[in-house]
Amino acid sequence: MRVAIQGEEGSYHHQVTLGWFGDDVQTIAAETFGDVFGALNRHEADAAIVATENSLYGSINEVLDLIEAHRYPIIGETYLRIQQQLITLPGATLQDIEKVYSHPVALAQCEHFLDVNCPAAERIEYHDTAASVEFIKQLGDPSCAAIASRVAAELHEMPILTPDIEDNKANFTRFLVLSPVEKVVKNADKTSLVLTTDHTPGSVARILSIFADNDINLARLQSRPIIGQPWKYRFYLDVEAAGEKLDRIIDIIRLDGASVTVLGSYVAAKC
Amino acid sequence: MRVAIQGEEGSYHHQVTLGWFGDDVQTIAAETFGDVFGALNRHEADAAIVATENSLYGSINEVLDLIEAHRYPIIGETYLRIQQQLITLPGATLQDIEKVYSHPVALAQCEHFLDVNCPAAERIEYHDTAASVEFIKQLGDPSCAAIASRVAAELHEMPILTPDIEDNKANFTRFLVLSPVEKVVKNADKTSLVLTTDHTPGSVARILSIFADNDINLARLQSRPIIGQPWKYRFYLDVEAAGEKLDRIIDIIRLDGASVTVLGSYVAAKC
Repeated sequence: MRVAIQGEEGSYHHQVTLGWFGDDVQTIAAETFGDVFGALNRHEADAAIVATENSLYGSINEVLDLIEAHRYPIIGETYLRIQQQLITLPGATLQDIEKVYSHPVALAQCEHFLDVNCPAAERIEYHDTAASVEFIKQLGDPSCAAIASRVAAELHEMPILTPDIEDNKANFTRFLVLSPVEKVVKNADKTSLVLTTDHTPGSVARILSIFADNDINLARLQSRPIIGQPWKYRFYLDVEAAGEKLDRIIDIIRLDGASVTVLGSYVAAKC
Repeated sequence: MRVAIQGEEGSYHHQVTLGWFGDDVQTIAAETFGDVFGALNRHEADAAIVATENSLYGSINEVLDLIEAHRYPIIGETYLRIQQQLITLPGATLQDIEKVYSHPVALAQCEHFLDVNCPAAERIEYHDTAASVEFIKQLGDPSCAAIASRVAAELHEMPILTPDIEDNKANFTRFLVLSPVEKVVKNADKTSLVLTTDHTPGSVARILSIFADNDINLARLQSRPIIGQPWKYRFYLDVEAAGEKLDRIIDIIRLDGASVTVLGSYVAAKC
């Protein structure tokens, strides 16, 4: 099993991939999200796992747009609580730290911890959390620390000086599992859709009401611009339904004049 | 009149500021959007102008979040068609160009033009479009070009080799004008709101229907996460209404259990 992910071994994408597919999986590390889809296009991967939103930062719109453009079906979802680890060389202490390397998002998520515990330490942006651990290992300088996942610390056999240093504990990322081929997911109860209304007044309200009137709950509603039509929008919807019941509703919505693209039905994960 | 903007003199923010306030305005150049709000906090500016969405890239969520956090009222909106200029030293030709400097977004917006017209030219990311013009002027090397606005070319007295090189002509950015103090805008007909529903099933559909049933058109609907409540969302709404009529509707929505924050009412601009 070859799974394309954005980021290197030891990244959060890698951690989620091990959790979903098991330890025997082979990850294909891509530099950008676009490269993940490139790996699927070139048949170099049997699946892909991509982050789609974070509970603090919101939607990762680039990923939504890529899923819609490439139409690789979504076959699963999973959540990861983001727990950031302060990783140093063996024997180093908080007092030793003069430089902290990590991805800018990880640095931002630990800002308060760093302000309190190593206020004088310089924060240096690195392209990948896991790679920052490898980098400080190679430097071999006890004044240099990295922020990354537990998996990254284990992979590079580096000690965690302080665990779980993220400022906000309600920090979850939602990931989607993509398949290069159509696949029917058993017991699917959640579906991702892209909806474009006819842009008449009240069209969004009307369509959301169709879901509500049929007791279909909306888990997510994200607007994106329609390229070439300034200030008109399409909507990404996650609805808590799948199968025949949803198909019937989609038919009703299409009769209303909207266009609907199904991106995949899958089993809703618990967070 | 001192107006805080993100970016340097000659940036698109600067161009919009001249258009809105006239040539006598003094711009306070801030490095980040956060710094723009810092300038208002420190009473260093009498207004601010911030980009809020682009017709190709969508919402600038950082700005929405900052407006909501700081509550400086929105008192106006304006649109700018983004037209990118290829700027070189006097006498340089397309064949001379080996390096093109600009902000990564500007480089991306001219990718096709560059692929066709200077395929061998290296694209080098710079922090600001206008600053990239100043930089190539200082270099004095005819093999170096920059991509920026017409205003930036004029400001640095540098010639435009090829005008309007953006790949997609339907490229508009929407800007909001913020005031440090409350201000009643005459003839206001558009309002920006933040809405948090009670998260019961169908609550979003119900509230959007209240607007639709009262013939209030929705110009924009953008969801953002609620920090600390994973997978619950608040919504930024732009509605085509203001004044007493809207106040009455907001009362009805609040009775439904939603919380509503008004970010400002202003005159809708034409695009």
